[in-house]
Amino acid sequence: MSHVESDEPVADSEGAHDDPAGPVTISYIAESAGVSIPTVSKVLNGRSGVAADTRARVEALVHQYGYRRPTPAIRSNMMELVFEDLRHMWGLEIIRGVEQVARENRMGVVLTEFGPQRSAIRYWIDDTLARRPACVVTVAQLSDSQRSQLRTRGIPFVVIDPPTELPDDVPFVGATNWAGGRSAGRHLIELGHRHIAMISGPDRLLCSQARADGFRSAMVGAELPADLVVRTDLTQEGGRRAAMLLLDRPDRPTAIFAGNDLQALGVYQAARSLGLRIPADVSVVGFDDLPVAALVDPPLTTVHQPLTEMAVAATEMALALGRGEKAPQPGLELATTLTVRGSTAPPVDQPRR
Amino acid sequence: MSHVESDEPVADSEGAHDDPAGPVTISYIAESAGVSIPTVSKVLNGRSGVAADTRARVEALVHQYGYRRPTPAIRSNMMELVFEDLRHMWGLEIIRGVEQVARENRMGVVLTEFGPQRSAIRYWIDDTLARRPACVVTVAQLSDSQRSQLRTRGIPFVVIDPPTELPDDVPFVGATNWAGGRSAGRHLIELGHRHIAMISGPDRLLCSQARADGFRSAMVGAELPADLVVRTDLTQEGGRRAAMLLLDRPDRPTAIFAGNDLQALGVYQAARSLGLRIPADVSVVGFDDLPVAALVDPPLTTVHQPLTEMAVAATEMALALGRGEKAPQPGLELATTLTVRGSTAPPVDQPRR
Repeated sequence: MSHVESDEPVADSEGAHDDPAGPVTISYIAESAGVSIPTVSKVLNGRSGVAADTRARVEALVHQYGYRRPTPAIRSNMMELVFEDLRHMWGLEIIRGVEQVARENRMGVVLTEFGPQRSAIRYWIDDTLARRPACVVTVAQLSDSQRSQLRTRGIPFVVIDPPTELPDDVPFVGATNWAGGRSAGRHLIELGHRHIAMISGPDRLLCSQARADGFRSAMVGAELPADLVVRTDLTQEGGRRAAMLLLDRPDRPTAIFAGNDLQALGVYQAARSLGLRIPADVSVVGFDDLPVAALVDPPLTTVHQPLTEMAVAATEMALALGRGEKAPQPGLELATTLTVRGSTAPPVDQPRR
Repeated sequence: MSHVESDEPVADSEGAHDDPAGPVTISYIAESAGVSIPTVSKVLNGRSGVAADTRARVEALVHQYGYRRPTPAIRSNMMELVFEDLRHMWGLEIIRGVEQVARENRMGVVLTEFGPQRSAIRYWIDDTLARRPACVVTVAQLSDSQRSQLRTRGIPFVVIDPPTELPDDVPFVGATNWAGGRSAGRHLIELGHRHIAMISGPDRLLCSQARADGFRSAMVGAELPADLVVRTDLTQEGGRRAAMLLLDRPDRPTAIFAGNDLQALGVYQAARSLGLRIPADVSVVGFDDLPVAALVDPPLTTVHQPLTEMAVAATEMALALGRGEKAPQPGLELATTLTVRGSTAPPVDQPRR
């Protein structure tokens, strides 16, 4: 496949430059960089034969001026899906959503897992630029430089469930983590619980912060204390250790909201080792609704995260951007829903101390 | 990418034709079909401009004579991975194995799920032939015609865990299902169980047949009856219903070997609903060792199927074939291993009836 660079003005430049005369052209970039138009074209097309410092200068200008290449005439029928790490059980839910939309659009999906030490990241961006996909859907965190390289080649990308804050111009699809945390808290309050703890994930993850804040909002709204929060890893072992601290004390909480399903399963382990029954002695709510949540005993009440639908929305958004359409919105969060199963019940009266 | 057909003899023809003079050449096929060499080349390359009946005639001869195109000079840095359905929780384990080898070989992986009603199968073979991948790794069942199309284009493929019998010349990687069933049975016998039931998957699946036969072999070897076998779906609900039949009777078995982990979790449900404790009242063994097996309570003793390693072996085999190397063996089964956790224990003496 070969592309011809045109000199046409670009309508959707990012507006990052101050030139009031209109959008930036490839010849303007060539002039600014003091190089020929074919050289800029080579950089934009990821071709070799450009000195490293020249390439860096052109890249910097392209980024500074917010240049975007016109949509190529020949559209790729391939797209990219990128994960940091596929160990997480929710990887499959996301893959299924992407595959569903890919089938509808007869689109091949190139799947990449960066893997241990993110080893694939070294070559992934180069290979992706060479493959010229219609779009990229990523669960992995891309660096500023990678995002800039994709952008200058006109390859749109959408981030699923961004773990940390992103620049405003990066389209994303997430879940309503705050509302989910709040609904978990409200469910326990409505069952009659008054002494409720939360096990939260690390604060550096936005989703953990949002879930914890939503939980706190529910507590404050019911004039209940919201200070019984333990922060730990989003793992079963993290959940088990935190639950041992919370449950092995005289004024133990009657309910625990865990930061995700794996932590909730750790609470199951802790309760069992302390001889406590779920939900009779302690109610447990998880977050995610992994397939395992319905399989455990008792089945876990949890906040359902619509992972497949999130992947569907992200893929549709990325493909639309790849067709040169404007995204209807820069980002969106899909609603979480509380799925009530067997791990929550009204509290049994305990002797108060 | 363009390929030049050569007229060289092909060393590894399938031997399906009776010509004792040597391997088949492209000119021999052209002569037999009464068409030109470029026409045969077009068919082999999946290009248009050949009448449907001519194409069919050439395809038939190519298949009949077992012609394989010489390995192309330009190697693709893409491979294909195909699933029937990604709902199964073990899909992720297989994807991770393929991704690992792909990273080591800097290979892009195009992932396809045929999906509901196998809708993607209509275009998958055409798109794959057009993409000219280095190789195909498939968990899905390909038809004779699809296999033949891949073969005539020189695209090697390897099947992971074939559910039904395959022709001898189809390379595959499976697991030692028979040995796994036998080790599950022997584990229960060694714990002292004498009244052991099996819940088996459908007989049309080779893996189910092999697991059941291995179990029977263990029973017969210990001079125990092996007739307490219920066949049902490989689902949690199938396992639950079968276990209700087995456990809700006066001479209930003291141990159950389930055909997979999902069925075993169904046994957990049945035991709970009947007020039976695992392992005190009934021991349970599963098969697969899905991530969920370690998370449930009690953690499930199960036969570990090395899914990631199977995918690694299949991908390495497929890539070697794609490089024109001979496969060291036409197929292989990787060893299963019994993983003992908390769901099995010696039987508690019961009053005999």
